[in-house]
Amino acid sequence: MNPIESKKMEKEYLLAPGPTPVPPEVLLAMAGPIIHHRAPVYERILGEVREGLKYVFQTKNEVLIFASSGTGAMEGTVTNTLCPGDKVLVVEGGKFGERWTGICKAFGVNPWTISVPWGRSVDPGEIARTLGQDPEIKAVFTQATETSTGAVFPIREISAVVSRYPGTLMVVDGISHLGAQELPMAEWKLDVVVCGSQKALMLPPGLAFAGLSDKAWSFVEKSTLPKYYFNFQKELKNITKNQNAYTPAISLILGLAQSLQMIRREGLKNIFARHARLARATRSAMKAIGLSLFAPETGANSMTAVLAPPGIDGQKIVKILREKHRLTVAGGQDQAKGKIFRLAHLGFVDTFDVIMGVAAVEMTLKELGYAFESGKGVKAAMEVFMEEK
Amino acid sequence: MNPIESKKMEKEYLLAPGPTPVPPEVLLAMAGPIIHHRAPVYERILGEVREGLKYVFQTKNEVLIFASSGTGAMEGTVTNTLCPGDKVLVVEGGKFGERWTGICKAFGVNPWTISVPWGRSVDPGEIARTLGQDPEIKAVFTQATETSTGAVFPIREISAVVSRYPGTLMVVDGISHLGAQELPMAEWKLDVVVCGSQKALMLPPGLAFAGLSDKAWSFVEKSTLPKYYFNFQKELKNITKNQNAYTPAISLILGLAQSLQMIRREGLKNIFARHARLARATRSAMKAIGLSLFAPETGANSMTAVLAPPGIDGQKIVKILREKHRLTVAGGQDQAKGKIFRLAHLGFVDTFDVIMGVAAVEMTLKELGYAFESGKGVKAAMEVFMEEK
Amino acid sequence: MNPIESKKMEKEYLLAPGPTPVPPEVLLAMAGPIIHHRAPVYERILGEVREGLKYVFQTKNEVLIFASSGTGAMEGTVTNTLCPGDKVLVVEGGKFGERWTGICKAFGVNPWTISVPWGRSVDPGEIARTLGQDPEIKAVFTQATETSTGAVFPIREISAVVSRYPGTLMVVDGISHLGAQELPMAEWKLDVVVCGSQKALMLPPGLAFAGLSDKAWSFVEKSTLPKYYFNFQKELKNITKNQNAYTPAISLILGLAQSLQMIRREGLKNIFARHARLARATRSAMKAIGLSLFAPETGANSMTAVLAPPGIDGQKIVKILREKHRLTVAGGQDQAKGKIFRLAHLGFVDTFDVIMGVAAVEMTLKELGYAFESGKGVKAAMEVFMEEK
Amino acid sequence: MNPIESKKMEKEYLLAPGPTPVPPEVLLAMAGPIIHHRAPVYERILGEVREGLKYVFQTKNEVLIFASSGTGAMEGTVTNTLCPGDKVLVVEGGKFGERWTGICKAFGVNPWTISVPWGRSVDPGEIARTLGQDPEIKAVFTQATETSTGAVFPIREISAVVSRYPGTLMVVDGISHLGAQELPMAEWKLDVVVCGSQKALMLPPGLAFAGLSDKAWSFVEKSTLPKYYFNFQKELKNITKNQNAYTPAISLILGLAQSLQMIRREGLKNIFARHARLARATRSAMKAIGLSLFAPETGANSMTAVLAPPGIDGQKIVKILREKHRLTVAGGQDQAKGKIFRLAHLGFVDTFDVIMGVAAVEMTLKELGYAFESGKGVKAAMEVFMEEK
Repeated sequence: MNPIESKKMEKEYLLAPGPTPVPPEVLLAMAGPIIHHRAPVYERILGEVREGLKYVFQTKNEVLIFASSGTGAMEGTVTNTLCPGDKVLVVEGGKFGERWTGICKAFGVNPWTISVPWGRSVDPGEIARTLGQDPEIKAVFTQATETSTGAVFPIREISAVVSRYPGTLMVVDGISHLGAQELPMAEWKLDVVVCGSQKALMLPPGLAFAGLSDKAWSFVEKSTLPKYYFNFQKELKNITKNQNAYTPAISLILGLAQSLQMIRREGLKNIFARHARLARATRSAMKAIGLSLFAPETGANSMTAVLAPPGIDGQKIVKILREKHRLTVAGGQDQAKGKIFRLAHLGFVDTFDVIMGVAAVEMTLKELGYAFESGKGVKAAMEVFMEEK
Repeated sequence: MNPIESKKMEKEYLLAPGPTPVPPEVLLAMAGPIIHHRAPVYERILGEVREGLKYVFQTKNEVLIFASSGTGAMEGTVTNTLCPGDKVLVVEGGKFGERWTGICKAFGVNPWTISVPWGRSVDPGEIARTLGQDPEIKAVFTQATETSTGAVFPIREISAVVSRYPGTLMVVDGISHLGAQELPMAEWKLDVVVCGSQKALMLPPGLAFAGLSDKAWSFVEKSTLPKYYFNFQKELKNITKNQNAYTPAISLILGLAQSLQMIRREGLKNIFARHARLARATRSAMKAIGLSLFAPETGANSMTAVLAPPGIDGQKIVKILREKHRLTVAGGQDQAKGKIFRLAHLGFVDTFDVIMGVAAVEMTLKELGYAFESGKGVKAAMEVFMEEK
Repeated sequence: MNPIESKKMEKEYLLAPGPTPVPPEVLLAMAGPIIHHRAPVYERILGEVREGLKYVFQTKNEVLIFASSGTGAMEGTVTNTLCPGDKVLVVEGGKFGERWTGICKAFGVNPWTISVPWGRSVDPGEIARTLGQDPEIKAVFTQATETSTGAVFPIREISAVVSRYPGTLMVVDGISHLGAQELPMAEWKLDVVVCGSQKALMLPPGLAFAGLSDKAWSFVEKSTLPKYYFNFQKELKNITKNQNAYTPAISLILGLAQSLQMIRREGLKNIFARHARLARATRSAMKAIGLSLFAPETGANSMTAVLAPPGIDGQKIVKILREKHRLTVAGGQDQAKGKIFRLAHLGFVDTFDVIMGVAAVEMTLKELGYAFESGKGVKAAMEVFMEEK
Repeated sequence: MNPIESKKMEKEYLLAPGPTPVPPEVLLAMAGPIIHHRAPVYERILGEVREGLKYVFQTKNEVLIFASSGTGAMEGTVTNTLCPGDKVLVVEGGKFGERWTGICKAFGVNPWTISVPWGRSVDPGEIARTLGQDPEIKAVFTQATETSTGAVFPIREISAVVSRYPGTLMVVDGISHLGAQELPMAEWKLDVVVCGSQKALMLPPGLAFAGLSDKAWSFVEKSTLPKYYFNFQKELKNITKNQNAYTPAISLILGLAQSLQMIRREGLKNIFARHARLARATRSAMKAIGLSLFAPETGANSMTAVLAPPGIDGQKIVKILREKHRLTVAGGQDQAKGKIFRLAHLGFVDTFDVIMGVAAVEMTLKELGYAFESGKGVKAAMEVFMEEK
């Protein structure tokens, strides 16, 4: 076997939890001549985009848009709602929980952390207890889906706790979740939800979003942490006039207008159902070939983290998938490195992407000597698809 | 079940024997600003295209390019090599064999036909016998792969017969064959090979090609049939100056330059091996779920025609594949209508396209009540891929 | 001066009478994944295209579409309406008049020609006299705009003559005219109008069109000339079912759907007025710098043929425009070679394309030593634009 | 006159100082299937991009890339090189000078400002005097070209002053300058140069850049201001491994790879000369029709700010240019609003863009009743082009 064949066909597959495949319509919507962000046509398109984002976030409030990756909106959330020395609670169950902690520390906010073993979810009761003991806590930071582990956190339940505290914000990183699984901002009383373009929104990376509740906006008014580029009040003032505070990433906004149209055409409910179906098929397939899931209790709609079989290096699985089958998935990060691989089913993805991914995993594991009956994974996935359609 | 769900995701798949999927690089190569066909840059590109076509046709002679579908090059072959009343032999084993007959009749050429049952191949001995009896026959017309049945004809052996007759041309319709399976023009002494852009060349339809041997060019000199748009001598004179007799389909030529580069990068041998592997996997899968092939002895590299199971309408299979799974394959034509479906593995197609196609067929047949063990088709396909890589 | 600077910016301009610039929307409409020509989505689009073509041809009859350059539709017109030995009348006032003659001869039709000096128009009275003397004439072949000279022929008046003869067809090559200038098929009783994609329709080359009157269709029924690929009856039968007889040039059809939408949005009247304005501005500019027009009495909306000043080679003007200013225009063909250059204002072209073209011509002529007051051409063009808006 | 004609042709022109026109090659380079930022192919491309950026910045040091607009890199420069309470000097000669002040204040840095009347340049002697009086000044912030006025500041001379102070950084906003006019980072001893993608780099907005000298990196080590998303050390560590700290704006990076190739092919010297020529032609044209420049002494290569004639509202000029001529230019901002319009000649722009812009301005001013001899502007521009080629 020679994993790098220079003469192979150049057909690439992508099932990573971001960036996700971009539909051709969206790619082409970004390939027209550039337009100016003060031109009436841009302002009209931005108006449509604002409505589309409210639909996806399920809120009546404005959703802010930044030219940055998702981390920029996470930083902006911290610096626009808090003050130096504020005490906050961070749910740390993976790499992105740690990011909330890192941002807080960088800006002089004092994070208390609830550590959750990677792959596990958090107990809302623990958050209730902590808030009960310390009502000074200004915000609870969490993930809806922790991208590094595929675990889903009980956002609705946590928010039910947090929303009882008028002095505490419920902040959710929805980056690998929003648009693939329920996260209704208004109904669940979420105060801040942040997102990025390269996930369920089916765009290239480069845009970040933040939706804020009225409660969150009242925090913004009092916040004294330093900010400039990620200044929420300035962006709010501009976006309500269909403008942006700084030159926006115009081509990505044009792509977003297109992808939001596709999302509205399919409908959030149908999209959530599709993602749930893809997730069930993937998990059923992995179990059928004897593999275990990294987050068995709370698998996300958007991705499935799978434990590498004993004795097989997860990084090697990822490498063979990429070099031999030209399929890019994600490996494990930090403490999960080598232990897992992550198969996403997120965004512009459907039945046959899952079947392809399962088949590629089967062929890779065979090559690595893992013993199982070939075909059982794909069969299990197909059975899910046949039942549910 | 509701086969037309308006709210389904808009992701389409194409495994038909033409048009075949076009690589993104080729699509984008055609999307730049149009250039003029007398501009030096166009002439340079046409020069490259000429070399690339010679590589694919495996000839040192010029390959002519027409703005037309493949049928145009078939017509041109008849009208540029023959004279009114000429007697020719046509191998008729499907819809495209009949097309040769139709063109000949339209232009006053006298076709004798060797009828081959659809799905079967032809016996070169029969051609030898016919030529032996009537050395007046000016040309033998045949297909390399008969697109309507998936049968491959023994071109090498037929040509060995025909090439013994200096007054007889060996004419091959290579449309669903060339670039996917061996058809070396010079080595096999083929006199005319015609092709279209929308098959192994990985382009949209709109270009037709004709390669001619020196023997064929000597026929052209004497041909008196009427022609104007498809005038081979005029095109030859122009193309050797990197020009075209009439305004060429410029954007398709730019795409062709790109696809020929991809073909040379992968290499004909590797491409043939890939197509052969895809064909073996498809056939193995179909047999594994109990289906029979329409052309069992001579399956093509480019496509597999599969018999619908008893009691199941082939058109219904095609319809559910398209409406429910959004996969376009071809049904049967004319006498094969309703009896077969045709799964192509041609052009910009690889491992996971076959797996996807097999899985879609499995799910469709389950829905139609055909009894078989689900997953066995995909398993069989994967086993072929695992053995051979 | 070094006309070929390898280090110059790569920005190209195109003002030739075909191909003409293609709008970005059209280029991108052709860059999506290929679809199958039997898929319902294609058939729906072809249905829209049919309506759009009827709007442009101003007819209720079907307009046929061929994958070919315009010459293919010219050939099809001859072979589908006539019989061997038929006598026809051809107006020959340039290279494309000669093409009608050439096609007729190639297929055994007997052309009488009315020779018009290049650059001049034809006298309808002469056609009336000829038809009066010989009522056996089966068809009058002419151009609406003769691309090689820029002369417009009095189609309405000629048709008024021809339509009095029930046994004679009025055939118009509308290739550099239709969509830029009035040519209402039904109102003017034109029997056949042919066109190509790469002119006012704002597409790359590769599609040809033919619209036929009921009278023309009655000729088709009796025609015995040989044809196969360009078989009008077969195409008519197919297109009324939103299909094509042979695999169509799908990507160009998708582009056509887009360009027809743009044409309907702007409206034929507005489009004709725009082209007329561009033509007036161009001619006014050329006269302002002392140049003479090649077709002074009948300048077309689509293009202006300009005489090179005495002592200056027209080919040199074309060469400097291309190499130094990166503007592609057309030179003279055949007997007009070196004498003229042709500046098109056709299709996706507006005010500033004309100003650019005039400025480029001014700078080129200065370099070639032609004496005139610089800026006067652009000024004259601007004055036309300012008056009329 | 009806400035908004719904039936007008949809052809748009853009001559604003950002975003600037994006070459088709770059648009198409961004329209391919998305790739993953950990894939080897991305890392290879990022390696090429790094080399290309060093070429444009004329430095051997790494240039950092951020997914943000240019303001993000400005903020990062402040927060990564300074400490709370640091005293800095800001040259304020327009809206973007004020932005440096705003960012400094937002992060607790203490800015002293040298106010320069809008449209004027700054005297390096004044900076020398200020630094001489207060050697505690940690940085001098300035623009190379002040986008709001078109004035160029004497960066070389200012840097000669600043570089004598080991405790003071020379920080340059090169956003509307770099790549269009000399700004050799190493040779002129500039410590930080920031830039954005949507100017001379011929890309859509969405990427920001920062190049740092060794001296600047030594400041970074000691900086204690808060930062997270714009963390220069983290990005440096990542980019030297051809990675990014956070998910990069992949599609824009692919476009950047393409535009950097175009820049290297043309060559910085040729690019600067082209921009200088376009600037001279524009200014010569504006003077020829009696207009005055807003920054007469120091006109930039990238843009020309022109004073509206007495009695004519600059905003109206901008509005008619856009609505009637479909040309987007920039008006004046803040204190210059209504007084000026700004015509850019920046990035993917050449001879005929200037001629088009000048002609559009001429026609607009005629319509507004400004008295001048029509055509004189275009003539003057052409004379510049003819002299210099």
